[in-house]
Amino acid sequence: MSEQNQIVVLKKRSVGVPQPDDFELNTVPVADPGPGQLLCQAQYLTLDPYLRGKISGRHISGAIHPGDMMAGEVVSSVVVSNDPRFAVGDTIAAFSGWQTKPVIDGDAARKIETHGAPISTALGIMGMPGLTAYAGTLRLGQPEPGDRVLVSAAAGPVGSTVGQIARIKGAHPIGIAGSDEKCAWLKEQAGFADCINYKKEDLREGIARTCPDGVNMYFDNVGGDVLQAAMEHLALGARVVLCGLMAQYNRDDMPPGPNPAFIIKARATVRGLVVYDHEDLRGEFESVVGTWIRDGEIKFKEDIADGIERAPAAFCALMRGENFGKALVRLGA
Amino acid sequence: MSEQNQIVVLKKRSVGVPQPDDFELNTVPVADPGPGQLLCQAQYLTLDPYLRGKISGRHISGAIHPGDMMAGEVVSSVVVSNDPRFAVGDTIAAFSGWQTKPVIDGDAARKIETHGAPISTALGIMGMPGLTAYAGTLRLGQPEPGDRVLVSAAAGPVGSTVGQIARIKGAHPIGIAGSDEKCAWLKEQAGFADCINYKKEDLREGIARTCPDGVNMYFDNVGGDVLQAAMEHLALGARVVLCGLMAQYNRDDMPPGPNPAFIIKARATVRGLVVYDHEDLRGEFESVVGTWIRDGEIKFKEDIADGIERAPAAFCALMRGENFGKALVRLGA
Repeated sequence: MSEQNQIVVLKKRSVGVPQPDDFELNTVPVADPGPGQLLCQAQYLTLDPYLRGKISGRHISGAIHPGDMMAGEVVSSVVVSNDPRFAVGDTIAAFSGWQTKPVIDGDAARKIETHGAPISTALGIMGMPGLTAYAGTLRLGQPEPGDRVLVSAAAGPVGSTVGQIARIKGAHPIGIAGSDEKCAWLKEQAGFADCINYKKEDLREGIARTCPDGVNMYFDNVGGDVLQAAMEHLALGARVVLCGLMAQYNRDDMPPGPNPAFIIKARATVRGLVVYDHEDLRGEFESVVGTWIRDGEIKFKEDIADGIERAPAAFCALMRGENFGKALVRLGA
Repeated sequence: MSEQNQIVVLKKRSVGVPQPDDFELNTVPVADPGPGQLLCQAQYLTLDPYLRGKISGRHISGAIHPGDMMAGEVVSSVVVSNDPRFAVGDTIAAFSGWQTKPVIDGDAARKIETHGAPISTALGIMGMPGLTAYAGTLRLGQPEPGDRVLVSAAAGPVGSTVGQIARIKGAHPIGIAGSDEKCAWLKEQAGFADCINYKKEDLREGIARTCPDGVNMYFDNVGGDVLQAAMEHLALGARVVLCGLMAQYNRDDMPPGPNPAFIIKARATVRGLVVYDHEDLRGEFESVVGTWIRDGEIKFKEDIADGIERAPAAFCALMRGENFGKALVRLGA
């Protein structure tokens, strides 16, 4: 292991879709771990749309300012431990940001448990995106057998898990995705009942085709016109889970949303989802979803870039919707 | 009793705020009641904002077309009964529309029970507006002791009842109304904790002043910018009940609504309310609210116009927000 730590900092605040030269790769000396700290070798870095909100200073978890290291959750191996709860070689997850050799407070690290799945899944289906899907589907959306469950950004790590949990509960998941390849994977691998490629089929026609009696549950990862179209097709008693705002993360303004009449007409229940509120479900979630993965009930897909120098371009591709599966960067030595 | 029935028909579809000459008063012969029917003398006619939606053809209960009699619920006395369930002199409510001497199917009539309150309340606090407030507050909004409960159109029959029920449950009702007179009544008679006169005080400043820790429950009767302002001030875990759309009933288009980010940020629950879904609560509602009225726990206010010929002007005033209290027309001979 070299004595150099590579870090990516935000060079300038992105305008619209982020560009790779909004970021800068720097090399700095590795820090010495103090009492209670761990020196780690980062293995996988997760790229998530909420980071765009942090760059705009509008995410509830705080802002990333120009000059700051990019933030985010990382899976690492412990190299030096000054905390008796962690041994050298342990695999941990922490919000240590875009750097290869972080020093992490033991109190901010958690040993990961992926129940036999690859350690990268601790950042995807067995991690924050998976818990988001689990809590949002079972606690907020509550799909019933026979329900039409519409999911936007369906090929992403949250959306694909939402649809599969809904299927396991007896509902019919309908995906919205941006390519035939994504739709094929959702139908053939993830067991979605159907999928709308919104770049080929008119979105409203697609929803009417796949949900002829209306949408019983809608899980929204994007906002914007996709949310508007879904709200126009709600069935009586529909549940809408608002989780992500991909359509507006690249914007500086706050565009309006759907007219409230759609909610009244459907007697719908619309709820906002923030995963941090649902930590109490983590143990149950890890055990249940881990079992579903082992039993082949749930599939997942990863989209992995190699090397920290590729992280900015991979993040920009994610924010253009070009990834297919959980966006990760492999950092391991 | 004369042999003439006076009826008000819609002459032309209103554009924007309704005008009195959108309506026409006609005199027609009184109809003969057939088997199972009742000939009645109308006593009170209710004017409600949802009628504007029917004129636009956009209300879930159906449209009123030019040439149609204006619709609406009416309290009447039975003059001739061909239904053994009703006796001459009974007081009934039915959706018999804007006419003085309706013939009503017995199956479409219900004897009213106002628990000692005036029969006009069967169209207000003891009727549909009261049930709307009761179900919307207790079943959907669920105010907790100490909650700040914000209510728009607060001096209307729904809003004033919502706030008073919230107060009885230990919450602090904050009204939004359009005159000092309405605000004074809400604070001094109805026991609201505070009131915002949105024509004098900046609405956002008023919400921040009265709900410094955010709005825990918002009961919306208007939509539009008032809804937008409330959504900007939601507390964590807020409940929003969407009940009416006064701000857009006079419009032909469907304006956009608030950005979904407000719902996510507050982890709010937003629900659409249609009173027809809550008929199962009617018995409980009549008994509980009847008791509260008798005990002086709940106050109500009526705004009564005299004579069917004044119904169009009174309806137009309602749609300009000029009424103060439940808008009614007295038709009794």
